[in-house]
Amino acid sequence: MPYAISRPDPGLAAALQQRIDTKTKPLGALGRLEGLAKQIGLIQQTLSPRLRQPQMLVFAGDHGAAKAGVSAYPQDVTWQMVENFLAGGAAINVFARQMGMGLTVIDAGVAHDFGSRPGLIDAKIAPGTANYLEEPALSVAQRDAALARGCELSRGLAAEGCNVVGFGEMGIGNTAAASLITHCLTGAELASVIGRGTGLDDAGMARKRALLARALARGGRPADPLTVLAEYGGFEIAMMAGAMLGAAEAGMVLLIDGFIVTSALLVAHAIAPAILDYCVFAHRSQEQGHAVQLAHLNAEPLVQLDLRLGEGTGAALAYPLVAAAVNFLNEMASFESAGVADKQ
Amino acid sequence: MPYAISRPDPGLAAALQQRIDTKTKPLGALGRLEGLAKQIGLIQQTLSPRLRQPQMLVFAGDHGAAKAGVSAYPQDVTWQMVENFLAGGAAINVFARQMGMGLTVIDAGVAHDFGSRPGLIDAKIAPGTANYLEEPALSVAQRDAALARGCELSRGLAAEGCNVVGFGEMGIGNTAAASLITHCLTGAELASVIGRGTGLDDAGMARKRALLARALARGGRPADPLTVLAEYGGFEIAMMAGAMLGAAEAGMVLLIDGFIVTSALLVAHAIAPAILDYCVFAHRSQEQGHAVQLAHLNAEPLVQLDLRLGEGTGAALAYPLVAAAVNFLNEMASFESAGVADKQ
Repeated sequence: MPYAISRPDPGLAAALQQRIDTKTKPLGALGRLEGLAKQIGLIQQTLSPRLRQPQMLVFAGDHGAAKAGVSAYPQDVTWQMVENFLAGGAAINVFARQMGMGLTVIDAGVAHDFGSRPGLIDAKIAPGTANYLEEPALSVAQRDAALARGCELSRGLAAEGCNVVGFGEMGIGNTAAASLITHCLTGAELASVIGRGTGLDDAGMARKRALLARALARGGRPADPLTVLAEYGGFEIAMMAGAMLGAAEAGMVLLIDGFIVTSALLVAHAIAPAILDYCVFAHRSQEQGHAVQLAHLNAEPLVQLDLRLGEGTGAALAYPLVAAAVNFLNEMASFESAGVADKQ
Repeated sequence: MPYAISRPDPGLAAALQQRIDTKTKPLGALGRLEGLAKQIGLIQQTLSPRLRQPQMLVFAGDHGAAKAGVSAYPQDVTWQMVENFLAGGAAINVFARQMGMGLTVIDAGVAHDFGSRPGLIDAKIAPGTANYLEEPALSVAQRDAALARGCELSRGLAAEGCNVVGFGEMGIGNTAAASLITHCLTGAELASVIGRGTGLDDAGMARKRALLARALARGGRPADPLTVLAEYGGFEIAMMAGAMLGAAEAGMVLLIDGFIVTSALLVAHAIAPAILDYCVFAHRSQEQGHAVQLAHLNAEPLVQLDLRLGEGTGAALAYPLVAAAVNFLNEMASFESAGVADKQ
């Protein structure tokens, strides 16, 4: 699986900075948006970047370990929420509509038969992963199929003209998988990357900690990202990692949501570190392991709104800020063109 | 000047919370957006609030003290930037366009004759304030006229159907005026509320500090907000304060930008404390005095993007988050309607 991801050529950086600095505003006064404008200009290798056909991809999958009690919700909520996505009633539907983003739901491995449905891509690897308390969650073949299918999805989007993609997910039990992946790939203590997910109480948290410690006693703490993905991953996490790699390879802008999406990025990043140059970190989640991931990736999200919903909601909510960065670069007048005096 | 501003009736709070809590998401998972949805529901006294005809109002004015050297930019930049607003080339133009907000520029007292121009409201009190180093910046009559005109503007907007208004400003030297107002109305030390404005260097900062100390030696530190406004205010600040009071009186949602806009709010708040219930704090500015103001008002802005531009840019950039709060409340399915199982 060689991914052809290289860092964008920095040759345009000075010209982009110059374009930003001559806009009718004090130097640096647009703060974070200025860095974003420069990043996107470099990704697209142009002084006039454009965001085209913004897409949210929401990957759904079930987890064998969910039945052991790592979540506050029953496993059926995964498929029920996919139905909610398809009916347009979930938070991500509302936000994607508002922000003018397309929304595609990908069944990466939900334990439910949806049949053929508009808005749903059937990429089911299997109806739920195996239980990582007993055996690796994904077989090597399943993992590779999920990565390949994700990569293919992004290539398809890019071929249609999309150049900015937001990542989201749904899968009861997937904060637990994300915790295990984060522990393995960052080296942070397990307890520091386990959170309440959708709302565990103290007893639920204690159970989750004990279960994940058992999983690690079985599967160990592999250093290799592909092994980690097979041991503990979900189908939605593996397919997202593949889609991220494919999107970066295609030179797209990647909008990174919260804890679970960032666990997929940890895998992608361990495979191809240059992927970070293509990533915009949308929001800082309330899930405590997210802070560990962000520190590991040296990333600072755009907003912190105390979200802990998933689905890609943080990525969609931050999208207008990303668009604003591109818009000011293209649409603002310069001191010269507007006839405004610069600093004394 | 009695303003009929009372706190919204909290009677609907429980029903709003119930509506929020039955949406298909874990309890509290939409973080800050949930509090926003509730606030706007209470302001509008409905379980189905709507944001109508969102408007940015950008108030411009010149400051007599600007010529003494409190800014990094020459005073002419005020009218030149107003021309830039009218031509559509400033940051606030770009962001208001993107967010679907109307933009109206108000000449509250610029030292320039614009003539009659589309998009510009001529509400000029005088061509620039007096120099507060020598005398009060505004006469009592000028101050009252500015407040009244601002109030009238908001009433006009409300009559046309607008129910959400963002505040912005332009005026070379107005961070200095905002510092003096903030010092007087919060009691914070002068040095803690003086910042670099549009980009003063160390020598410029030292000069600004010395000048503002001189102004205070002349005008003192009045406790009464109306006296503070006359001593140190700008026409744009006074008219904004009036517009804020009028907007709250009309039951509108007020989007509060950064340091200068918040200095106007300090005045409005000292006159009518209930105004805070109508305010959404958009962003945390890089100008250090803003943190002092926010602490005084016990306010936590939605985003922090290291902005220090003014014009209302922070308010416009945060608007999609405010709209998202209203949208999730109206558009998301409930657990029951979507057939999704709730927590185990």
